[in-house]
Amino acid sequence: MTETNIEIKPIGIIRNSISDPALVADEKGLRQNRDKKAVQKGFHETEEEVSEIILREELKDLLSGIEEYSHLIILYWGHGISGDARTLKKVHPMGDESFPLTGLFCTCSPARPNPILMTVVELIERNNNILKVKGLDAIDKSPVVDIKPYVSEFFPRNDVSIPEWMRKIADNHNSR
Amino acid sequence: MTETNIEIKPIGIIRNSISDPALVADEKGLRQNRDKKAVQKGFHETEEEVSEIILREELKDLLSGIEEYSHLIILYWGHGISGDARTLKKVHPMGDESFPLTGLFCTCSPARPNPILMTVVELIERNNNILKVKGLDAIDKSPVVDIKPYVSEFFPRNDVSIPEWMRKIADNHNSR
Repeated sequence: MTETNIEIKPIGIIRNSISDPALVADEKGLRQNRDKKAVQKGFHETEEEVSEIILREELKDLLSGIEEYSHLIILYWGHGISGDARTLKKVHPMGDESFPLTGLFCTCSPARPNPILMTVVELIERNNNILKVKGLDAIDKSPVVDIKPYVSEFFPRNDVSIPEWMRKIADNHNSR
Repeated sequence: MTETNIEIKPIGIIRNSISDPALVADEKGLRQNRDKKAVQKGFHETEEEVSEIILREELKDLLSGIEEYSHLIILYWGHGISGDARTLKKVHPMGDESFPLTGLFCTCSPARPNPILMTVVELIERNNNILKVKGLDAIDKSPVVDIKPYVSEFFPRNDVSIPEWMRKIADNHNSR
């Protein structure tokens, strides 16, 4: 069963002004594309970045009713991730060597075997087959593979434990 | 860009006792596979269901450090969804005709253009390349495409709005 490959046809494409990812990866590992301050600034800017999701015209009816949601889950494909980067086993999270070398599936690294990346975004408006959203941390021209409604009741809030290094990242994220 | 198909190689497979999905779909729409009470019961049982995720042996190092998380996000492929079901545009959510006919991307229907399905599960234990998890609503033998850490700080909690019909589903989910 795990031998059969799955074929996915993108449902649309992301357009925004982010041409340059904050983190890059190759066969040697994950690293920050800019200095640490610029990376932090990059993440903050991404949260404010407005992107357009342009759906294939024939799929526009699948958006019927979407305006009633304030937030959506976007699954997109990390098309900038090289084949080499997809074979990494462990990385320093966020490309920060002060964080321990950690198995890929324990990190949010975009470089992973199947770079299906996920962000919860704020829906600003819909115009026919185009969604305008805020906070999508994808680079320009990323293919979109699915859109799901975000319903906070389906996500646990209490009794969730995470590693100490991830706590630092989460606290920094939350303090904005 | 949206013309190029994406190829995904599953990272592993799900094993559990769920052979029979609560919701089924064909070209005519989404419907409940059993009577309404059985569907409700099915969803409750799924929350308690313990599944094994068996990773490809060569990927076991990517789990290094996973025991420090209590919850994981599992992306898996809805391998039981037919080609016809993937062309649906609108459905009655949960196959319940008292809910309005709604665009696919506004629902959690497993029948969608790219059935990459997502569940947040509780991690019970890891044994080499096998994860034992609770609450995975996949059927037996579903291919797994990605595993991500669940960090509640990355998900909004306040000022989230959803349609009235989804509020009913969410309230029912939360009252358990």
